[in-house]
Order: sequence, then structure tokens, then C-alpha cells
Amino acid sequence: MTERPEYRQIGKRVPRPDAIEKVQGKARYGADLFLPGMLTGKVLRSPCAHANIRSINTDRARAVKGVMAVITGRDMPWLDSRGIGETARDNLAVEKVLYHGHAVAAVAATSESAAAEALALIEVDYESLPVVLTIEDAQRDETLLHEHLGTNTYIREEDIHGDIDAGFREADVIVERSYRTPTVHQGYIEPPACLANWVDGGQSTLWTTTQGHFVIRQSVARMLEMEQSALRVIPTEIGGGFGGKTAPYQEAIALMLSRHAGRPVKMAMTREDIFRTAGPGAGAIIRARIGARNDGTLTAMEAELIYESGAFPAAPLGGGMRCIFASYTCPNISIKGSAVVNNKPKIRAYRGPGASQSTFASESLLNELAARLNMDPIKLRLKNAVEGGMKTPAGTFLANGFRQCLEAARDSAHYQAPLAPNQGRAVAAGFWRNGGNVSSALIHLHADGTAVLTTGSSDLSGTRIALAQMAAEELGVDVSVIQSVVGDTEAVGFTSVSGGSRTINATGQAVVEASREAIQEMKQRAASGWNITADQVDWRDGQAVNLTNGETLSMKQINKDANNTGGPITGHHSLNVRPGQSPSFAVHICDIEVDPDTGQTRLLRYTTIQDVGCAIHPDSVEGQLQGGAVQGIGWALNEEYIYDDQGVLQNPGFLDYRIPLASDLPMIDTVLVEVPSPNHPYGVRGVGEAPIIPPLAAVGSAIANAIGQPVTELPCSPPRVLNLLMQRP
Amino acid sequence: MTERPEYRQIGKRVPRPDAIEKVQGKARYGADLFLPGMLTGKVLRSPCAHANIRSINTDRARAVKGVMAVITGRDMPWLDSRGIGETARDNLAVEKVLYHGHAVAAVAATSESAAAEALALIEVDYESLPVVLTIEDAQRDETLLHEHLGTNTYIREEDIHGDIDAGFREADVIVERSYRTPTVHQGYIEPPACLANWVDGGQSTLWTTTQGHFVIRQSVARMLEMEQSALRVIPTEIGGGFGGKTAPYQEAIALMLSRHAGRPVKMAMTREDIFRTAGPGAGAIIRARIGARNDGTLTAMEAELIYESGAFPAAPLGGGMRCIFASYTCPNISIKGSAVVNNKPKIRAYRGPGASQSTFASESLLNELAARLNMDPIKLRLKNAVEGGMKTPAGTFLANGFRQCLEAARDSAHYQAPLAPNQGRAVAAGFWRNGGNVSSALIHLHADGTAVLTTGSSDLSGTRIALAQMAAEELGVDVSVIQSVVGDTEAVGFTSVSGGSRTINATGQAVVEASREAIQEMKQRAASGWNITADQVDWRDGQAVNLTNGETLSMKQINKDANNTGGPITGHHSLNVRPGQSPSFAVHICDIEVDPDTGQTRLLRYTTIQDVGCAIHPDSVEGQLQGGAVQGIGWALNEEYIYDDQGVLQNPGFLDYRIPLASDLPMIDTVLVEVPSPNHPYGVRGVGEAPIIPPLAAVGSAIANAIGQPVTELPCSPPRVLNLLMQRP
Repeated sequence: MTERPEYRQIGKRVPRPDAIEKVQGKARYGADLFLPGMLTGKVLRSPCAHANIRSINTDRARAVKGVMAVITGRDMPWLDSRGIGETARDNLAVEKVLYHGHAVAAVAATSESAAAEALALIEVDYESLPVVLTIEDAQRDETLLHEHLGTNTYIREEDIHGDIDAGFREADVIVERSYRTPTVHQGYIEPPACLANWVDGGQSTLWTTTQGHFVIRQSVARMLEMEQSALRVIPTEIGGGFGGKTAPYQEAIALMLSRHAGRPVKMAMTREDIFRTAGPGAGAIIRARIGARNDGTLTAMEAELIYESGAFPAAPLGGGMRCIFASYTCPNISIKGSAVVNNKPKIRAYRGPGASQSTFASESLLNELAARLNMDPIKLRLKNAVEGGMKTPAGTFLANGFRQCLEAARDSAHYQAPLAPNQGRAVAAGFWRNGGNVSSALIHLHADGTAVLTTGSSDLSGTRIALAQMAAEELGVDVSVIQSVVGDTEAVGFTSVSGGSRTINATGQAVVEASREAIQEMKQRAASGWNITADQVDWRDGQAVNLTNGETLSMKQINKDANNTGGPITGHHSLNVRPGQSPSFAVHICDIEVDPDTGQTRLLRYTTIQDVGCAIHPDSVEGQLQGGAVQGIGWALNEEYIYDDQGVLQNPGFLDYRIPLASDLPMIDTVLVEVPSPNHPYGVRGVGEAPIIPPLAAVGSAIANAIGQPVTELPCSPPRVLNLLMQRP
Repeated sequence: MTERPEYRQIGKRVPRPDAIEKVQGKARYGADLFLPGMLTGKVLRSPCAHANIRSINTDRARAVKGVMAVITGRDMPWLDSRGIGETARDNLAVEKVLYHGHAVAAVAATSESAAAEALALIEVDYESLPVVLTIEDAQRDETLLHEHLGTNTYIREEDIHGDIDAGFREADVIVERSYRTPTVHQGYIEPPACLANWVDGGQSTLWTTTQGHFVIRQSVARMLEMEQSALRVIPTEIGGGFGGKTAPYQEAIALMLSRHAGRPVKMAMTREDIFRTAGPGAGAIIRARIGARNDGTLTAMEAELIYESGAFPAAPLGGGMRCIFASYTCPNISIKGSAVVNNKPKIRAYRGPGASQSTFASESLLNELAARLNMDPIKLRLKNAVEGGMKTPAGTFLANGFRQCLEAARDSAHYQAPLAPNQGRAVAAGFWRNGGNVSSALIHLHADGTAVLTTGSSDLSGTRIALAQMAAEELGVDVSVIQSVVGDTEAVGFTSVSGGSRTINATGQAVVEASREAIQEMKQRAASGWNITADQVDWRDGQAVNLTNGETLSMKQINKDANNTGGPITGHHSLNVRPGQSPSFAVHICDIEVDPDTGQTRLLRYTTIQDVGCAIHPDSVEGQLQGGAVQGIGWALNEEYIYDDQGVLQNPGFLDYRIPLASDLPMIDTVLVEVPSPNHPYGVRGVGEAPIIPPLAAVGSAIANAIGQPVTELPCSPPRVLNLLMQRP
């Protein structure tokens, strides 16, 4: 389903060059790095979820044979209580520990065992404080996490359009509920790991697995009061991030240890470390109310969103507020949001941050409204779907494909298929405005006609091949000619993190512009050889064409001789793309069966339909749709952090924190709708976030339809579903 | 002694950022690399200096436990007998071995011992051939090294100006001698080492210590029939090269072994390997004749140069012919040159390649001519010194500082100082035209006001700091703001090898242009903020100045906000600089004492005077002058390859191949003459080659003056000097 022009390289299902290395085990991830003389870095983690640190004695640890450095939070150069100082205090606690597992000291030693022995000898005197775990506990402000904030509810925002009370007065039907979603984890496979090599007075190097090495450089340099140019950050291959690898966890610690020890230091988290301490996705409580006329016209949409933030301010409030009602046009909207700190690890972005939680509420409620109106839920959505030019809480957009996605869902075989007893079906939509931000690209052309495309975007999902396809399309050559690589902080200009579905959009635009600069230079070289001007040269099918006589020179011919016509040819571009210029809409259909005796669910069929603008590399795009849906399905069905009353996580591993396995799932069907974005040269919209946004409501509503009870709390684990079954009238 | 303008950053003796890493042992050289699963690669070397290979049986080697790959020359994909196929055959012999130590097979194994065991089990059936070692033997063509060449004298060239016979007829005095110089080694400290990681169908990576990673990429890719974009070459820190690390020795082998084994492969040469097989500097025979009038005016200069080339065509004939007479104006010049292959390792460039040998002849003979004319040797040189606009065998140059160097020598305290018995003093001049060639530079500006300067030039001698100084001078900021790094083949455009004194000249020009591009962009950003045009903005002292009202914006201010004014700022430039645009002249004065009983010499005093154009980083420039002089002194006094009659090197180590030690030497005095080159934005000339060119003649003539016998053969080791002493009348 496409409205886009025909391309030669774009849209081809070409092999991903990174695939072979990954499949053969040759890709080098964060933990695969070695330097001579390298030490092992380890952190001591707090046994308390909330406590003052009275003192830390590291003397005995320092005396252990093989221990080369011991540091505490006090050794961090920059400890301002806000901004980057807060990241420092999260990385290594200073006055307080704020969650179970919070790092309090770090050692570097010549062996794992020496490091472990030293950790055991560090004496920390804790003064226990009451533990604040739930949003409600935090809101009571009986115990404050941060005295300087004066409250745990560190942020309150609102976004009001029209007259919400008038809107509800106009409504024939009003639905209202309160929803709750759990703390969850991004579930990336590769544990964070890094290797730091400090050089006094020179340039230090940090290898790390990250979604954004430029941002890591910026953060670590500021934490350690270094100049950015004194730190080189080299990204390794990355085994998943989903928002969880956008900020430093241990990079600054490793670099400080290396500084103190005078040797390279490697650090790697265990899976347990990750669950206990590395940025989960926020739990939330969303109260929502929607009013409509009997014909389905929405008259009022109201929501109150409360997110948890973990130990420091970080909740994804903006994403939640922007996305909850952005898919529909409604004259009267009121969105109020707040967030609280609590004694859990600091929340980090998780794919479409904030939107899955808030959309669980709005789309579940819309399904309930459709039932109350006795109206097909897709028809209700089509009646109110936002279109190009309409104003929404997320801005006013140009052409988009939401309507086409809804129509595709309505007309699909899946939506028409019959259901058996104990089975339920539901649809849900999702919106993500897609990121913009800063990207840089360089394309170096070689004498043999090949080229290297260097960008600053770490590749989480096949972006290297897609960027190569755009460059190849511009240059008019086969994509095999372009080697697309992720450059370190010295190789290319500043580039923001790979996240928020920004890479193919923003970095893609930088690639297109860099390729065009290279083409312009090739035209100039050809023109010089032909003794004409560059505007008398056209670029077609990978060749300069002399418009005065039809002669041609290929990219290979021009570059073979480039050293003698002015030097090698490089195209370069950096830009800052405004976010929200190329929004995405997704519609999911979910069929589920509930075992009425046990509450166990079985996912029967799942279809994702999404306006991707232009699928540069369809395999990767489909993979994004499937992966996002599966993460959302896990969130809806099984995933949750389970704490005891002392704030100790009870399920810190993949055995007890259950992400969906292939055997749990049917094939996830994908339908690519391609309504080109007018704000991207190839109409790209970004595809990574939108697919995780509908599943919570799609799964929840499908279960609700199967059991005849509303689902307002996730995950729909068997005990919780059984409980709902038992509440049936 | 300078004619250049005042600069703020250029000419400062700032600390070298690479110094700390090197001094602390933190710099990572070729052998300091590790990858998980890495194998050890080793080669089997020929016991014969000249033999046909009848067969190689690797079956028993393959069966050794831990052996993962065994290859021979037949496995090289590209074996054309010319061009890059010749490099392949040098790296790994095919039909013939051409020197003792020539590699014939290679293995990769999980341990050193398994690799060694496997090598011992490889059975090679050699058919011995007569060994051709001397130039004279080679010229007889009784045994040919390469049948397809038809002769061992693979090249003959001549360069004739005027009428040489008429010139000699005009002469009042004619001097003539035949000179001989030995095969020598560059004597770099770091042995060649590399790590190769082959990726089928993806991008392979090669880490290596090299003077030119782009050229290594080009060569290895062609040898293995890869596309250039399929190979990334990452240069390590380099511990000396001097021309000896410009071509692949083991890189292609390591990559092939990695391909066969499916694992990373590391290879490192031993010191013995290096001496036996890694590109020495050429031995030569130079016959020269010079005629002059009684007033010292040169009327005719004639030479015949014959260089050895080792196993394959590679002799530095061009450098020798260009430099021998280029320092003087003479209407009648005849230079004939040829080179022969012989059963030694293939000759590689050695600092000022070819010129030291030929200049030994011309400058020794000029000293003899001065004595015959009863004329001060500096006065003789001043009378005939080439000046700007004059034509020479090396081209016609603009302003140069040869005359100033000669005057500085004449007026120096050293030249006036008295000598004792058995002591001799001599002067000699040297000329190098200095390289140009292809260079690329990128400067990425950071939000905190710092910048990273990335070039493709490996840093042999402090070029990183000097390039940073030029960028800082352009930008108007302190040099500490600029981090200057060597980018790998993905990070920056193609850049030729660091060699031939081209880096600060050519790469420097790319840096200046890249900095100017960044300044232009900063002016544009400032102009946009001020609502004026870029031509209403000046750049002064690191600030944009609003010419309409005097307001300023610093580099830091502009870049802090750059992401929001169009994205991060990068300046970029690539170029190809013609060689010979900024030639250098050097004049050395040498005092030496000879023990008349033993022939042992003691260097008493040594002064190097050189027109460096503009000393960007004077410490590094003086280091170049001292280092080059010392290498030349070693060449003159001690260094030589000593072969037995079977072509087996008898002194393959620093104990028996004696390079000068600090304890052998007085402080080498340096005088920097700065006559700016009109062809470089800062007047840079290049400094690396010129200082190795005069010492052979300066030392040889000083010994001749001490003992009253001409010195025509190097090195002046005690037995050879004793022999000369015994020949005294």
C-alpha cells in the first residue's frame, strides 16, 4: 500500500552487511574489548533502597593485593545536585542511596577475584530511611527522596484545549476509568559494558555500547570536568538499547578508575545489575474520561497522568501527554500530568517513552466507548481520526496515513475472521511524532568507485543499510558500492542518540545532503575535464552527463582520477531536524484466547499496520513493527518489576521477569502503509516507536472482550486475569 | 634566523599531546592489540637466498592441533608478475624465493607453539640457484632473478642538460671518483605488527603500524581482490618508519589467514625478521666527475648512479638523480642512472630515498674540488649555489634559503673553531624537493568551544601537534583547544603516506583550508544571528566580529548554539599538492677525530643548518634535524648489511648492526633558517628528509681531512679507516 515514487535502491530487501558478523559471532560488542594491562572494574551496590550514607571506609579494600584504585561518589569532580551532577550521583551515590543496588563505591583490580575481595572489605555505614515505592506513597510526601526538591512530585504540567466541562456537557455518553501500568524493562540482550583508558593531559578513550556516543562524550566529559576534545568515545556494536542505553551508567566510573589506576579499566554489568539498577521504563497511573455524541463524535477528552521516575527526575511525561489524544480530533481536551520520584532505579527512555502507558488508557477507553455506542471501534476511530492540517496536542501535521491504516485494518482478513468461545479481539491505535535532532554524515569516495558512508548514528535496527540505500539512490549506484559505518566521535560531526525514531529521518537527511554535495563535486570535476561549467553537467544513473554532447563519466571514472583533479572527494553535511515533522500512526489488531479455569492467555493472531512513510529497507522496517509489537505484548501480558516492601526487586533475571519467547507468539503480521512525509526527501517517517504504543490497549481490550470485564491494570498475568474472571457478575 | 611574520600559535614550543602516552607506556602500537579468539600468525622463511620452489607440502602442518589455517603464495588471489602482484610475491613467494628469509608459507594457530610446530612440518622442495648479491654480479646478467625482465638491470634513465663534453673542455680543474655505499636499514624501533579480522561479505578490519593506512588499504584490497570499501584500516601508534613502513609486509597474509581460519589473526615480526626481510635502504655505486674554472665556477657535472633494488624493482633512482646536483647551478649536467635486482630483500624507501647515496658522491667531490682550487669549500658552494628562479635537475624553484644556510655555516662559531691533530672538519650540503601528494582534513567543532582535527596522516614525528597549531592559528584560538588525531580510513578522506617530508606541507594545507571552511561557516552563523550577511562579519582572535556595530561572538559561543542554528560545524578539505613546490636545503658541519692506531673515529661536534621555511613546532623540527643527522652519521660510520656468499645476513640485530647510541654522539646543534616557501600558507617547506642527506659526505670528508686520504666507501668503520691510514703515502 504505497503512494511513493519508484526507486531503484530504496525499498530493496538487500542483505544487511552487519548480519553476517552478528550471525558468525564476529561482531564486537561492549564486552569484547581488551587492552594490555587492562583492569577489571566493579562496583559495590547498596543493600538498602533508601538510606543516608554516614561514612564509607575503603582502607581495607585498598590494601588488597591487585587492587589499583578505589573510588567513591566523593571522587566525582562535578556533584551539583541538578543536571549532570545528578547523573554522577546516580552513577555513584554521595550522601544517600536511593534504590536497592545503587552503586556506592568502585574498585579496579588486576583480577575479578581481587576486585570482589576488595568490594567485600569496603565498610559503608548506612542510616536506613523509609522506602517509597508506589506512586501513591510518593505523592504523600511523608518521606522525601530529595530535600532540595521539597516534594516527591517534582513536575506538574497541563495542556488544555477548548472547554473541557462544556465538552462533557455536550456528550451523550461518557466513559471513565483509572488505569495502571507496571515498571518494566527494555529487555535488551547485551549487558552494558565499557572499556576506559585515561591519558593524563592527552586524549582519553572510552569504548562503550551506547545509543549515542556523542552524548556519552558530552555527559562523561562534563561529569569529569574534561574538555570534550580530551575524550574520544568509540561505539561498539550494540545488542539492543530501546532507550535504555542513552546515558552513562558506568562509563564515568570506569574512566575515573582508569585515571586513578593509570591502567585501562573494563566494566560490564551482570543481568542482575541491569534489572536492579539500569533504567527501567516507568510505571504509571492514568485516569481518563472521554465523552461523545451518540453518532460517535468526540466532544471531550480528559486525562490525568502520573508517572513514576525512580530515584531522580526522569519520567517520560512529555511523550505520554503528547500522545494520549493526538490521534483524534476533539475540540475540548484537558491533559494534566505529573511525575514522582521513588526508590527505584532512575527511569530511562523505553521505546516511545510514556506513550504506551497513556495510550493504554485512551485506546482501552475508546474501545469501551465504541461498545457503549454499539459502534464498530474502527468506525469510531475513523470518524474522529486526525488528518493533515488538523491541530492536536502534539502539533499540527501535514499529510499522514492514519486513515489508511484504519481502513486497512477494517478491510483486513484478520478483522473479518470468526472467533471461538473464550476468544477476544480488539484494535488499538498508536501515535508517535518521531524525532528530529542533530545528525552528521560524511561520504568518502574511493578510487575504485566504492564509497564509505560514515554517520554518527549507532545502529540498533538496520539503519546502516537503510542509510546506504539512500546514498546509493542519490548517487545512482548499486547499494553494494556503499559501505555504511558508524563513526566514532572523531570521525564525524556531533550526532544525537539513536532513539525516538529519528535516525532514518534526521541522519537520513544528512546522508542525502552529503551525497548531493559529493555529486556536485563530481559534476564539477567532470565539467573541468570537459571544459564546460558544472551547470552543463547532469547526474544520472551514477554518471555525469555532458549536456552539450551527451558524453558520460561514471562515478568510478571520476574518482579513479580524483587525486589528480583536486584531491579525493568527500561529501559532508550536518543538520538539526525539528522533531514531529514526520509523525507515524499505527493500528494493531489482536486476537487472544483466555483459559477460563487458569486465567492463562494465548495470543492467537496479531497484525500491525503502520504508516511508515517510505520503507527504505522493508525487512528492517517489518522487523521493527514485529519487535515493537512483541515488546508491547510482553508488557501487556507478563512483564513487571516485583518489589518486596523493602524495595528489593524479586525477579531480577529473564527467568522471573518474563519477556515473550518465540514459542509464546504467533507470526506477527505486518502491513506497511506508505504515505510519504512531505518533510523528508524520501518521505521517511521513522518506524521504531509507533509499534510499541498500541499493544497494551490492543491486548488488554482483547482480553476484556474475551472475558467481558474491563482490563485496567497490567500485566494480564494469569493470577490477575483469574481474579478478573472471578469478579464476573 | 627568520623572515616570517609573527604568529601566535605557530612557532610555540607547546607540549606534544602524544608525548605523555608514549612516555607512560600507554600508546598502543601495532603489537598492542587483542581481539577475542585471536590467533597467532607466523610465516615460514626460506633458507635459500635464490631458489626455485619445486613444491610445498603443508599436509602435516594442517594436522597440528590448534592450527586453523595454512596458506602459501598460491593462495594469493592476484599474482600478476608486475604491479601489486609483485608485492604479493614479495610478501609470500610463489615460483621462486629471491632472498634469504623470503616467506614461503604462513600458518595461523591458537598458540605460538602450535604455529611454530606447524611451520617446522611444512616441507618445501627448493632447487638452489646462484646467488646474486653485488651490483656488479647483477649487472653481468649471468643469473637472472626475473626471467620476464630479461635482465637484472631493470631500469636505465638519463637527465642531460647542456653539453657535458664542452663543459669539461671549459674546466680548469676536473675531479673524478667512484663512490660506494652499503645496504642499510631504517632502524625503526617498533617491529611491524598487525591484526586482521576478516568478515565474509561484510567489512574486514586491519589494524597495523604504518606510514599510510590508505595506501595499505589500497594495496591489500587489490592483492586480495577486494573492494576498498570492504576493508577498513585502522592505524596504530607508530614507533618509527623512515620509509620502511609504507607498503604491506604481512597485512595481506594476516587477512588471508583470518579469512581461512574464520578468526582474527595477529602477526608481528621479530627484529631478525626485520633485518632479513623488511625493506632496507639501497646500496649504491656512484661515479661522479666535476669540472670548474679556477675561480670556482662550475662548468660541468657528470654522474653515473647504480642502485641495488633487492628482489624486486624498487630502487630510489629518481631521488638520487634529482638530488645529486640540484643545489648548484651549472650549464652542463649529465646524470645517468640505473638499478639492478639482486638477492636481498626488496629495497624500501629510507628517508630522502636515493639522495644520501648520490649526495655522498657529489658533496665529497666538491670538497675535493675546493681543496684542488685552494678555495674555502663554503665559498665554492656560495659561488655556485642555486637561487630562486634558476633551473636545476629537480625543477625551477622560487625563493629558497640555501644561500642563507651556507652563510650561517660560514659565520658560525663551529666553522671558525680550531682543530687539534688527527681531527678533521668538513661541510656538506643536501637538497630534498619535499613531497606534495594527496591529503584530507576534517575539523569538527564542539559545543564547549573545543575541536577535533582529524587527518589521514600517520604521525611519525610530531605532526599532530604541528597540524593543530596551524588550525589554532587560523581559528585564532589557543592550540590546547584543538585535539589533533589520526583518523582511520573511514574517518577522513584518502591521504597519501606520511613520507617524503610531505605531511606538514600537504596535510597542513588541507588543515588550513578545512579551518577556513569552518570559519566561513561560523561567520555565516554569526551573521544570521545578527541579521547581517557573512561578508559583514570578520574573524579575528577566535571571534566573529560584527563589522556594522563591533559586537563579537566567540568560537565557543557560536558552537554552543550550533545545533540550533543549522547543526554542528565541520570544516573539510582534500587536495593534491604538487611535489617539489617547497624544497629544502641543509648544510652540515662535522668535526671528527681519528685514532691513527686503530682507525676508530670519534664525532666531536656536529651542526645542522637547514632552511625549514617555517618551524611550526620548533622542538619537533629540531628533533627531525638531529634525528636525520644521526641516521646519516650511523650510515657513514657504522651501518652496513654484511652477507656471506650464500646471501645470508650475518648481522641481523642491533648488536651487530650498529646504529649510533646517545653515548656515541655529541649534542647535535641545530640552526633553523626560515625563508618561507611561497607555495604554502605558512611558508612550510618540510623538514624530515633533508637532514639525512649531507651527513655521509660531511662525515666522510671530515675523516678524509683528518687522515689526508679520500673516503669513497662507507661505512667508515675502524677496519676500513685503518686500511686508508695504512695506504697513506
